[in-house]
Amino acid sequence: MNLWESRIRYPDGQIAPYQQGPNWRHFKLIAEPIKREIIEGLTIEALGYNGVTPGPLIIVEQGDWVILEVENRTDKPNALHIHGLAKPNFQDGMPAVEPTPTIQPGQSYTYRFQAWQVGSFFYHSSEIFQITRGLMGPFIVIPKQEQIPEWYIPYYDYVMVLQQWEIPQPELGKVELGTFQINKFDTDPNFFTFNGKSFPNTAPIYTSYGQKIRIRFINKSNTSHSMHTHGHDFKVVAVDGFPRNDWMDDTIDVASGRRFDVELLSNNPGIWVVNGTKTFHQSNNGIAPGGMISRLIYENYTPKSP
Amino acid sequence: MNLWESRIRYPDGQIAPYQQGPNWRHFKLIAEPIKREIIEGLTIEALGYNGVTPGPLIIVEQGDWVILEVENRTDKPNALHIHGLAKPNFQDGMPAVEPTPTIQPGQSYTYRFQAWQVGSFFYHSSEIFQITRGLMGPFIVIPKQEQIPEWYIPYYDYVMVLQQWEIPQPELGKVELGTFQINKFDTDPNFFTFNGKSFPNTAPIYTSYGQKIRIRFINKSNTSHSMHTHGHDFKVVAVDGFPRNDWMDDTIDVASGRRFDVELLSNNPGIWVVNGTKTFHQSNNGIAPGGMISRLIYENYTPKSP
Amino acid sequence: MNLWESRIRYPDGQIAPYQQGPNWRHFKLIAEPIKREIIEGLTIEALGYNGVTPGPLIIVEQGDWVILEVENRTDKPNALHIHGLAKPNFQDGMPAVEPTPTIQPGQSYTYRFQAWQVGSFFYHSSEIFQITRGLMGPFIVIPKQEQIPEWYIPYYDYVMVLQQWEIPQPELGKVELGTFQINKFDTDPNFFTFNGKSFPNTAPIYTSYGQKIRIRFINKSNTSHSMHTHGHDFKVVAVDGFPRNDWMDDTIDVASGRRFDVELLSNNPGIWVVNGTKTFHQSNNGIAPGGMISRLIYENYTPKSP
Repeated sequence: MNLWESRIRYPDGQIAPYQQGPNWRHFKLIAEPIKREIIEGLTIEALGYNGVTPGPLIIVEQGDWVILEVENRTDKPNALHIHGLAKPNFQDGMPAVEPTPTIQPGQSYTYRFQAWQVGSFFYHSSEIFQITRGLMGPFIVIPKQEQIPEWYIPYYDYVMVLQQWEIPQPELGKVELGTFQINKFDTDPNFFTFNGKSFPNTAPIYTSYGQKIRIRFINKSNTSHSMHTHGHDFKVVAVDGFPRNDWMDDTIDVASGRRFDVELLSNNPGIWVVNGTKTFHQSNNGIAPGGMISRLIYENYTPKSP
Repeated sequence: MNLWESRIRYPDGQIAPYQQGPNWRHFKLIAEPIKREIIEGLTIEALGYNGVTPGPLIIVEQGDWVILEVENRTDKPNALHIHGLAKPNFQDGMPAVEPTPTIQPGQSYTYRFQAWQVGSFFYHSSEIFQITRGLMGPFIVIPKQEQIPEWYIPYYDYVMVLQQWEIPQPELGKVELGTFQINKFDTDPNFFTFNGKSFPNTAPIYTSYGQKIRIRFINKSNTSHSMHTHGHDFKVVAVDGFPRNDWMDDTIDVASGRRFDVELLSNNPGIWVVNGTKTFHQSNNGIAPGGMISRLIYENYTPKSP
Repeated sequence: MNLWESRIRYPDGQIAPYQQGPNWRHFKLIAEPIKREIIEGLTIEALGYNGVTPGPLIIVEQGDWVILEVENRTDKPNALHIHGLAKPNFQDGMPAVEPTPTIQPGQSYTYRFQAWQVGSFFYHSSEIFQITRGLMGPFIVIPKQEQIPEWYIPYYDYVMVLQQWEIPQPELGKVELGTFQINKFDTDPNFFTFNGKSFPNTAPIYTSYGQKIRIRFINKSNTSHSMHTHGHDFKVVAVDGFPRNDWMDDTIDVASGRRFDVELLSNNPGIWVVNGTKTFHQSNNGIAPGGMISRLIYENYTPKSP
């Protein structure tokens, strides 16, 4: 396995299995109704790929032919689009506007295209209001191993998909547990997830002293999300798949459709907040702390009593 | 005519006529109540300049004296401000705060100032809640022809004004046709337009293989809009009138008051989506596809059946 | 006093007093219920530090040890976090997630850490819905005087904290005066302040011809704010404490958690608008002009009658 690929982590998510040959990888995605427990006791009836939302993480090498079989088990015709990765027109997956195939319910279609550009991308349904119900997932292109020196590869490479949900709840400031249908219009979101989980149920990000780690923030929601790491500044190494140079920061604004790759040096041991800084986004329907909060945990760290 | 000027396109919009002499151009704008059909059968009672919203596209050459006669046929005193282009104080057009003239209903005022800076700007009423009802339009300053080599000039230069509207509708997920007054507060927009039209009624952007085209995204709404092109990455060549260097991207976040000029090379024939990526913004009151979707169409392209 | 420190201005705000020694400064902050009149006749019952919201401006020199005594006179346990300035873990002030002390109501805690990085930061309560009620304030680290040539220091250095408030009001388009509790969820803000005041009650920014002035925009709200200066372009000199190079602009998007330092040359005498460009943000509950509007006033400027 490509060394970089072995370093990729997708907390709370599934990495898509694949078959491969020289210069191709074959994936299968099934779009279907799913359930997802985003905090303990609160489950959404959503749409997902292969049983989950966000969908499984697809990883390919630069130059690979991607063979992507998509089966539509939802009740509406749709297609699959990969945001940001240029493809020949008929493989672009936007049949309402472009001359590309529609996948009828119960049918499948297999996309074939080459992944020419390294970077962070995401795939989603061509139906907007299927996306807001969960039909999207991350898509990462990494360099071929021989094209990158080992020192450049992050020790861990975390993928964080930002989503928001409008879930029926009696009033702000309370959380009613149970199973709920998503309000697909998403004009008034009240739950905010990293990889489909809200705090306190988000899986941590782990590191150890001296490691360089990468975090990829990916957003296709109706709102921008402002992401922040405590105790560490970071270098923004790529925006929307394109490299940036020497751009240090501690807070970034990840607008809808955008992907920010940041790298930080683990030089400050502890247990740290990684979060969306918008105030309401750090709650579950107004109960804080919640929402877009995760933890960056140094392995084997023993908190010092102050 | 300046070659670059002849390349500028304003789909669904009007280009402002003018009189000119050496180093001056004279325009006339009338602010007045108008109607605009944003999708077939749905008309808004709005405010516009010279009968339209967004207002006519004003094009001047760098160094020109701009003589801008503004007549106020609305029912409120107002003035005209050009966002981003520095002018002498008394020509700035913000009479509620600055010592600049107010134009009473039925009266006119003529602004005179020099366009010293190349770039994308916009003009608007000094009354905030006239802007949300439509009183704004694009203002472009291009270089004098002798100052720019021909190869630098885009083959087409498209101007795209981003607007949003809060239109009374019975409920999300339906579109009631008819004629409607705008809710001027615009805190809960439900229609989203390029140059005053929502998909499927947006006029396409055309190109041909090998052409370099520019698109200027201009936003003065209550929300940021995240803009994306399918099948093509682009170079961000200017932000708010100032050049940027070597900044490739595929998605940009155009915040309120900002203007992004991007250039793409037409190297991927087809019929492509150009859109705002926020999910709800791709709908008409929750009916998708709609809203901020346009098409980039290669002339003489014949779709290949996949 | 450090020359740069003497140049810092915080319109409508209080600068925090301190005790100091070689390489340390000692501040005291008391978190408590407060009242703030944001426009004449409209007072919010909020939370503040030392009687005000936003809290007093803390200024330290790079390399200083900061001794920060925080007393909690609110009714909830909390702690104090300084956004963007990396500290040892147990001083980070996020006890719900990190192993750092909680301050019980009626208790105090004293933070001690070194300010290693020059830049604009802010402090806030660890309780999200105390922040939305006002518990935050600006924190500035300036270089030691011997490390910076005098010409580099701005003539004035203005600190502008951006806040928004959801205040109970009968309907949009009217302002009911009186004293009101803040709705802490802040999902539907209707008042927008610079340093705790809305237009027309915002204190102006002053300058004189030929001066270079800096403005620091600091945002920790639930929304991004798009900031604009009339009559003047500016150079973005730092983002989130990190220097930027040669980035001219006239409008910036200050997302939640971000801090933009801009510098402009006072070369265009007059009385000018400095504002947030989002339309509704320039009103007080829908009455315009209001909200995030301030004035840049040239001292001794006499308006010319046009």
